[in-house]
Amino acid sequence: MLNDERFYGHTALIDEEHGVETKEGPNPAIFDPQLFREHAEAILPTLESHLADHSIRGLKLVEPAILLSLAKDLMTKEQGAVVPFDREKFKAIIDLYIKTGIQVHSPGFMGRQFSGVVPLAGVVDMVSSIVNQPSSFYEAGQLPNVAERIMANEFNQFIGYQPDRFTMITTSGGSLANLTALLAARNDKFPTVWNEGLWAFEGQLRPAIAISEEAHYSVSRAAGILGIGENQLVRLPINQAGQIDITKVPQALEAAEQRGLKVFCMVASAGTTSMGAFDDIDQLADIAGTKDIWLHIDGAHGGSLLVSDELRHKLKGIQKADSLTWDAHKMLFVPSPCSLLFYRNKEKSYAAFKQVASYVFEKEPNIYTEFDSAEKNFECTKRPMIMNLWVLWALHGRALFSNKVDHLCKLARHACRILEKEPDFQVLHQPESNILCFRYLPKELDNYSIADFQVEIRNRVCKHGQFFISKVDIHGESALRVVFMNHEIKMSHFRMLLQAVVKSGQQVINEYQQHPKQ
Amino acid sequence: MLNDERFYGHTALIDEEHGVETKEGPNPAIFDPQLFREHAEAILPTLESHLADHSIRGLKLVEPAILLSLAKDLMTKEQGAVVPFDREKFKAIIDLYIKTGIQVHSPGFMGRQFSGVVPLAGVVDMVSSIVNQPSSFYEAGQLPNVAERIMANEFNQFIGYQPDRFTMITTSGGSLANLTALLAARNDKFPTVWNEGLWAFEGQLRPAIAISEEAHYSVSRAAGILGIGENQLVRLPINQAGQIDITKVPQALEAAEQRGLKVFCMVASAGTTSMGAFDDIDQLADIAGTKDIWLHIDGAHGGSLLVSDELRHKLKGIQKADSLTWDAHKMLFVPSPCSLLFYRNKEKSYAAFKQVASYVFEKEPNIYTEFDSAEKNFECTKRPMIMNLWVLWALHGRALFSNKVDHLCKLARHACRILEKEPDFQVLHQPESNILCFRYLPKELDNYSIADFQVEIRNRVCKHGQFFISKVDIHGESALRVVFMNHEIKMSHFRMLLQAVVKSGQQVINEYQQHPKQ
Repeated sequence: MLNDERFYGHTALIDEEHGVETKEGPNPAIFDPQLFREHAEAILPTLESHLADHSIRGLKLVEPAILLSLAKDLMTKEQGAVVPFDREKFKAIIDLYIKTGIQVHSPGFMGRQFSGVVPLAGVVDMVSSIVNQPSSFYEAGQLPNVAERIMANEFNQFIGYQPDRFTMITTSGGSLANLTALLAARNDKFPTVWNEGLWAFEGQLRPAIAISEEAHYSVSRAAGILGIGENQLVRLPINQAGQIDITKVPQALEAAEQRGLKVFCMVASAGTTSMGAFDDIDQLADIAGTKDIWLHIDGAHGGSLLVSDELRHKLKGIQKADSLTWDAHKMLFVPSPCSLLFYRNKEKSYAAFKQVASYVFEKEPNIYTEFDSAEKNFECTKRPMIMNLWVLWALHGRALFSNKVDHLCKLARHACRILEKEPDFQVLHQPESNILCFRYLPKELDNYSIADFQVEIRNRVCKHGQFFISKVDIHGESALRVVFMNHEIKMSHFRMLLQAVVKSGQQVINEYQQHPKQ
Repeated sequence: MLNDERFYGHTALIDEEHGVETKEGPNPAIFDPQLFREHAEAILPTLESHLADHSIRGLKLVEPAILLSLAKDLMTKEQGAVVPFDREKFKAIIDLYIKTGIQVHSPGFMGRQFSGVVPLAGVVDMVSSIVNQPSSFYEAGQLPNVAERIMANEFNQFIGYQPDRFTMITTSGGSLANLTALLAARNDKFPTVWNEGLWAFEGQLRPAIAISEEAHYSVSRAAGILGIGENQLVRLPINQAGQIDITKVPQALEAAEQRGLKVFCMVASAGTTSMGAFDDIDQLADIAGTKDIWLHIDGAHGGSLLVSDELRHKLKGIQKADSLTWDAHKMLFVPSPCSLLFYRNKEKSYAAFKQVASYVFEKEPNIYTEFDSAEKNFECTKRPMIMNLWVLWALHGRALFSNKVDHLCKLARHACRILEKEPDFQVLHQPESNILCFRYLPKELDNYSIADFQVEIRNRVCKHGQFFISKVDIHGESALRVVFMNHEIKMSHFRMLLQAVVKSGQQVINEYQQHPKQ
């Protein structure tokens, strides 16, 4: 056996060692733990002020060329040596970062499904960044893997899958969760595809996916990515509320079969992106069940309604769905990404990626590897995203989330009632969640294009800088869209927004009347 | 036009508003900016101590059932109301998180390609978590989009693409970068596939991908995901050093064509996962060029050698590759994920995902949308991951990275020289980067399985808790693998590891001699 002397007593190696240790390597100050703490402390008041700023503001769009120049000015020009930390420059960078961003913490922000986070999650995320545990493997991130198991069970109380059969993974965004679910579905229904590819179906019915006309673009993209082809997408018609029209589903599936398609997967939405509409999962599951179709629910936005006793009914039948995407970074208010993908049947989750790699996957599972997720999720190195969610859930309990979700959805309903009383506004739906779509249609509009008018209003309102809202196509025509993600929004803010809409709209009309377009 | 009175003077609405504002919504203390600062400040000393702990330690594996129980004990049982912040519980959670994780900051950690981060990046990441700017769209994250452009140009100095033609995106991990590149390749070479699917090739040559026998599992997985099928993978043989054997490439491609395959993409590695080997990009690019094959380089691990004047030559010819994956969260020491994907030809980057979605993609590009990446990257909501990298680069300059990369690779070379002088150790390659693979083969090994012996040693060394190393299959047989990711590692640590290997090995031999297996 080798002994200490042979390993420690080698003079030549010690010399080599000194060469390695002293001449090169990074500047120690960069890695100094005390300086890290000081730099973090120095930036906290800036973040505190940012969070405390409830002023009504939208987005300040800076021309990219100008911002490029500002950013470059903050960079060192030194090429040869490591430049010491410069507190002023760092502060200037962070200030620029905060100021030029989407202002998710302001009541003027009503534009998208991004949320201001529960601030404590930012602290947890910093810990995650420092400890840097890649959580696809139990041995690399033990607590994150355990936390995933806990949150899976907590949330399954609201879903209702059979406790010993279901599973949940976390993954980097709703698009990846949707893709993973569709892969599992494809490989489950057509087990030869993974190895043989999609050629084998020439002459047979072709694998196809039925999706809502209102499905998120990540779902239709998935058909292109998976080699199925967008032409093999079967679009399910929607009703006025933006939900899949259940009465038309059987005939759509039949028509698909007649065109030589075998629909193996149906994707419904629990909260569409445009209107926040909920498809009738209960009935769709029954249809899917009779036809051996995998039912995937894209609940990226609306899955969070499951934690609310008041709103859970929107996902009635969810326990019958084969899989569910649920973004905690939307209405559970944690930093993005934090996407959850649930499977009713654990075994089928392994169908998504069939592969073995010696340096990561153990051939014989044990109590540790049983907690690994790498065989079930796309990523090899995966951020321990669950920690942001679990820590909040562990410390504050469900009510933190359910109260806020209830509140945001109530804001949308109240806003709708305000609009309904305004004759110049057209409400496009009864809000099912926290999204409200509408049009401003004053009588003076005359023969100006309704769609162009909404887009022009949206652009002017945003440019004015007080409110940030989005535009959306509803039944093929542009509309204005408000998303309530911030509980600081009051109805007075919404009314101020309407004023801004009216003001911009009237400006457009005045300009048009003076200089009519061709 | 509506006036102030109509919007502000509506009593009934004010009543509704009060109902909304006072009765429900989240507990304000949870969102209190001052408390956020205090909670963050309270946890910083814990992180400082963690970073300052240079003790030699590996991994403390806790049985999942025990950890589950510990974690559950830290959770509130309250269901009805929002529970106030509990500092003691929070501290206990963070302590448990840190202790049970992979100890990337310890010199005992030599096991995987995860790194201890430059601490300042953790601060930047916290800012990103709080400001929560999704960076697929310029309007949602202006500075991250500008920073991406800057870093693309900075790094292209080392790649050498034509400045006005190349592009770079960031994406959530090397696996997603590889998939995206292969998608762009597939859609570029077979433009009909996105819409029509892969059926159309029945009877023709089938699209196929040539990859190194040593390719990362994400690359072979991609063939399964994209519908091409793993059977349509052409495995390029490797030489003893773990590199693609260039002399065998032409015949491998010819043989593929004879089996009815059309190789449209070849994937080479700049730093294989197992040995850190670099394929000869220069020669592979010439072969690919003559055959209209897309050359993708998986430089997830070794792309970072480009920033080093000393080591850049390992990627000679990179400017001829069509695309390059480069993980900054490996050897540029930022929190994961932070993956960069470069394309030689900007236009081809749009081939990966062909789709339009009204609520996000603008029909008419302008100076702002020209900076959007959503059409080029998989994610819709994307973390502003570039900020961690750009801020470090801006403040400290290139030398921070190049010095550390040089240093880590030098550690591997020195360790190799130590091993070469030990007759009982077999060195499996001359390290090209910071990875070193070897076997312990003492004479006493007798007829004990060499492979089982290495695995058993690895498990015992790790279980002992002082060092964390990995095992790997080299040319089909298990070996020990060390990855130098921490500049605090000294040769004395490596020699201590060897002692631990010898000690564990001798134990195994003694036990075997006393109780030989069948």
